[in-house]
Amino acid sequence: MEHIGPGSWRLWAYMIAVYWISLVTYLLLWRAYKHVSEIRATALMSAEPRAEQFAVLVRDIPPSPEGEIKKEEVDSYFRAIYPDTFYKSMIVTDNKEVNKIWKKLEGYRKKLVRAETIYAQSRTIGSPEGIRPTNRIGLLFSNKVDTIEYYNEKINELTPMLETEQKITLRDRQLPAALVFFSSRVAAASAAQSLHARMVDTWIVVDAPEPRQLIWSNLSINYFSRVIRQYVVYTIVAVSIIFFMIPISLISAFSTFENLGMLLPFLKPVIQIISIRTVLEAYLPQLVLIIFLVILPKLLMFLSKAEGIPSESHAMRAASGKYFYFTVLNVFIGVTLGSSLYSSIKSLEGKPKLLSAIVDLLAEKIPYSAIFFLTFVALRFFVGFGLELSRLVPFIMFHINRKFMCKTEAEVKEAWAPGDLGFETRVPGDMLILTITLCYSVIAPLIIPFGAIYFGLGWVVMRNQALKVYVPSCESYGRMWPHIHTRFLSALIFYQVIMLGYFGIKRFFHATFAIVPLLLVSVIFAFVCNKKFYRFFQHTALDVVCNELKETPDIERAYRSFIPPSLNFDKDKLDGDDQNGEDGDHYGQV
Amino acid sequence: MEHIGPGSWRLWAYMIAVYWISLVTYLLLWRAYKHVSEIRATALMSAEPRAEQFAVLVRDIPPSPEGEIKKEEVDSYFRAIYPDTFYKSMIVTDNKEVNKIWKKLEGYRKKLVRAETIYAQSRTIGSPEGIRPTNRIGLLFSNKVDTIEYYNEKINELTPMLETEQKITLRDRQLPAALVFFSSRVAAASAAQSLHARMVDTWIVVDAPEPRQLIWSNLSINYFSRVIRQYVVYTIVAVSIIFFMIPISLISAFSTFENLGMLLPFLKPVIQIISIRTVLEAYLPQLVLIIFLVILPKLLMFLSKAEGIPSESHAMRAASGKYFYFTVLNVFIGVTLGSSLYSSIKSLEGKPKLLSAIVDLLAEKIPYSAIFFLTFVALRFFVGFGLELSRLVPFIMFHINRKFMCKTEAEVKEAWAPGDLGFETRVPGDMLILTITLCYSVIAPLIIPFGAIYFGLGWVVMRNQALKVYVPSCESYGRMWPHIHTRFLSALIFYQVIMLGYFGIKRFFHATFAIVPLLLVSVIFAFVCNKKFYRFFQHTALDVVCNELKETPDIERAYRSFIPPSLNFDKDKLDGDDQNGEDGDHYGQV
Repeated sequence: MEHIGPGSWRLWAYMIAVYWISLVTYLLLWRAYKHVSEIRATALMSAEPRAEQFAVLVRDIPPSPEGEIKKEEVDSYFRAIYPDTFYKSMIVTDNKEVNKIWKKLEGYRKKLVRAETIYAQSRTIGSPEGIRPTNRIGLLFSNKVDTIEYYNEKINELTPMLETEQKITLRDRQLPAALVFFSSRVAAASAAQSLHARMVDTWIVVDAPEPRQLIWSNLSINYFSRVIRQYVVYTIVAVSIIFFMIPISLISAFSTFENLGMLLPFLKPVIQIISIRTVLEAYLPQLVLIIFLVILPKLLMFLSKAEGIPSESHAMRAASGKYFYFTVLNVFIGVTLGSSLYSSIKSLEGKPKLLSAIVDLLAEKIPYSAIFFLTFVALRFFVGFGLELSRLVPFIMFHINRKFMCKTEAEVKEAWAPGDLGFETRVPGDMLILTITLCYSVIAPLIIPFGAIYFGLGWVVMRNQALKVYVPSCESYGRMWPHIHTRFLSALIFYQVIMLGYFGIKRFFHATFAIVPLLLVSVIFAFVCNKKFYRFFQHTALDVVCNELKETPDIERAYRSFIPPSLNFDKDKLDGDDQNGEDGDHYGQV
Repeated sequence: MEHIGPGSWRLWAYMIAVYWISLVTYLLLWRAYKHVSEIRATALMSAEPRAEQFAVLVRDIPPSPEGEIKKEEVDSYFRAIYPDTFYKSMIVTDNKEVNKIWKKLEGYRKKLVRAETIYAQSRTIGSPEGIRPTNRIGLLFSNKVDTIEYYNEKINELTPMLETEQKITLRDRQLPAALVFFSSRVAAASAAQSLHARMVDTWIVVDAPEPRQLIWSNLSINYFSRVIRQYVVYTIVAVSIIFFMIPISLISAFSTFENLGMLLPFLKPVIQIISIRTVLEAYLPQLVLIIFLVILPKLLMFLSKAEGIPSESHAMRAASGKYFYFTVLNVFIGVTLGSSLYSSIKSLEGKPKLLSAIVDLLAEKIPYSAIFFLTFVALRFFVGFGLELSRLVPFIMFHINRKFMCKTEAEVKEAWAPGDLGFETRVPGDMLILTITLCYSVIAPLIIPFGAIYFGLGWVVMRNQALKVYVPSCESYGRMWPHIHTRFLSALIFYQVIMLGYFGIKRFFHATFAIVPLLLVSVIFAFVCNKKFYRFFQHTALDVVCNELKETPDIERAYRSFIPPSLNFDKDKLDGDDQNGEDGDHYGQV
């Protein structure tokens, strides 16, 4: 589009292209939203119900007059409202202590199994007696002990401790949150959408997430402190998006050699070697930047969890949103304005119409980065998908692990586990490519085939990976889609605004009149989609879950699946599921 | 406050006063919200339940594949979701035709009763035979007929017509909306808060309003057309608030004598009399303004109903909000800036910081209108409450009516009816006084006793009127309060902003630092109140309605109370309530 002079009538063709792309985007987004909504309905409708469909999560339970949370009160509260469908409640407890003991115990158990395996292997290979593995307790010079005996002893020591701790936890560490179970899916879905108490900040009832993705430590956080945490986190993220160079330069500043030498005195001799020093001095800032970008998703995930969100998948969505704005604003705008960023910002100062000046500036600079982004997209699908498909890194890691570390079968299995798909970084990455492709689609149309190849290949590759390789760590029934939809639309609106600025620079002022209604259409489209589809992604529609089930649901099993492993009494003692019923009650009654 | 020079340290005292007033306002608002919330809970909790507590209003029912709305489908839809608590459904029909016939019939019935009363009176007074009242059919020169016979004939003619029309309406004029009845209050309250269909714009379920305040013609309006209507109405109101002088001057322009003479030629001779002409020319613009202000509440009520709101009380709240912004912006700002309004606006032009310039301008002008507003408040409580308490106008009207118009007892009763309290104009009026009192509380503290008298007297007078005189036309269980609360807070924020500007003019720049946090506190207070209380005013909390009822509720009676009178088959034939059950089913099954 660069070769067309200002004010040329040929710009009309580009104008039409902008319209065409926008309209196709609306159409595809509309159909995709409808499609995902149907998939969600099918999943929720399934005749084989899942545990979380019978449960709701109750937070902010007001303390009783004596200042305690009592299971009986929660029970009677819900039994009064749902006399026919209330099944049972489970008070959330502060599991920090019991988890600590349980983890220790589990660690001992693993080590015991490992020692037993080593012993068994040594017996089969060499002498029939075998070599009993030994280990040292504590420091390097202490006595060696028989490992199997030692861990057996430890486990026997810890098991009663765990049991007393479990009892104490269930009795004394009750928190103002609970899981409530219903005997029908409709009752649970309806309860999760209804206001229960006249003080809106008490007895807040929401859909229960899957047992495996519950963030137990967040459940008891008070309503208003959740709100405050949320705003604090938003502020931190917004500030770090806008000034994200500042923490990095801060870190760089701290990691100068003088400081390093002072903080870590044992490094001094190394630093004083000139050659190492030169290399470090040149690469340390970049190194810090790379480290920052690597820990960024983890940091965002940590921040999202700190908001007080009750489930992993929700935290993942929140982190994904933050990461998207981070990448788009920093990579896209950063690259476009490039090194002239700060001088550009300075040139904006004092201009009265700041927003339109920013748009003009972006529109002016964007064409110059077209080549960079072309190669960026190409690199992503050549290298990115290649690495993804070959899974080279996990492959190497697995073999190293198997060779040197894993002894028992459980350990091999753990090393082989492909892990989660990692939505929180993958989706924002794809959305960045999408934003780039959209924004250059008319200015440098050569990007379109690259984008098409990226998403085409991506579809084939990731479909395979998602279905056959990765094991999802949680299921949110398509709740990710509205987030993707919103970001898709914001990319589209960003594109339209850029085009508005671009036509302005080309002195093609019909464009203003032609693109402003398009922007309006985008906003209306967003509004209509939101009104038509979104609430179903927040809540479960009742007509979806009201169909007949295959068999009478086993709610006791659903209830038991929510008991955290550290509080599960009978894990060690019982094997059959049929005997659990009684002990489940025991759990409930303590 | 006028006598204190700029930058004086005595301004600190005023500063503290601003804080004091704000803090007291927060405290009172908080306690009031809590109090109203409790009252609402008590009303909803009542052991004598009301019909609307068992019903929900379903809108946007999607048409069946044949394009029709079928009662069986609605029934089966809700029976599937609520197998135990679903009672019955009532499809909303297009009652325009049947209402027309019914109104005619009712008119004839009234006239018949009137004629019979006149006949009976004439018999007791004069001759034992009495004079049978007669009337003319049609024009002045037609024959006289016996009134009683004539109306009896007419009624006999219309009754079968009404019946066929009722049948046609119930069979063929079904609209995509329904009232659904449940056998328990909890089920209805919970259904009204739950999402039912995966397409969010279908099967929208909300709380049913009282039967008497249902706006039948609005029920079938489509979801998105409701949204569009709402925005159109908001735009109209916003435009007419900002430019409200324009329609008035337009009307004035049209009502000049030349135009009047042209439009209504028969007025010409009157206009040509000089004295009448002079008086009219002087008063016509004011007259037009007064007429406009009189019809304004009705206009706003009409606009609010045009939004597609399903109940009268909701429309009343919407109209009240519009009227509040109208009066505050036009009366308060209009009077303050007075005739210098337009020149002031011109002086604002081209200033970069428009908002702060407006605040400064207002702060500068406000002290000059203090006297006006003092007298305004005084006038309101002297004349306003006097008129209110004496009810002079209704008293005169009633006696005129009884003397000359009313013949039957029903007519006398109708003339005596005190009517509704009229929230849609009364609340905004009080809120205006409140805004004035708040804004002058520090600038001209003399207004405080006036305000106190106004609200003190108002409490006494209106409490009496509300409890003993007026008959409320609808009950919304305190849903008005959040609106009042919001406007109270916006008045407070307006006051704080004005004070900010005022201290600025006094060159008391510590004020900026001291009042900005106060503004922040106001915003946070509004947020917390909204989060803590508001949702209970939107929906019914389940623990409020779950208590035991005095007796088994008669849901058939609740169902029957929703049947509009024009569709009530047995009104003429049956007297006892006990026989209605069967015919109710008939209504349902047609």
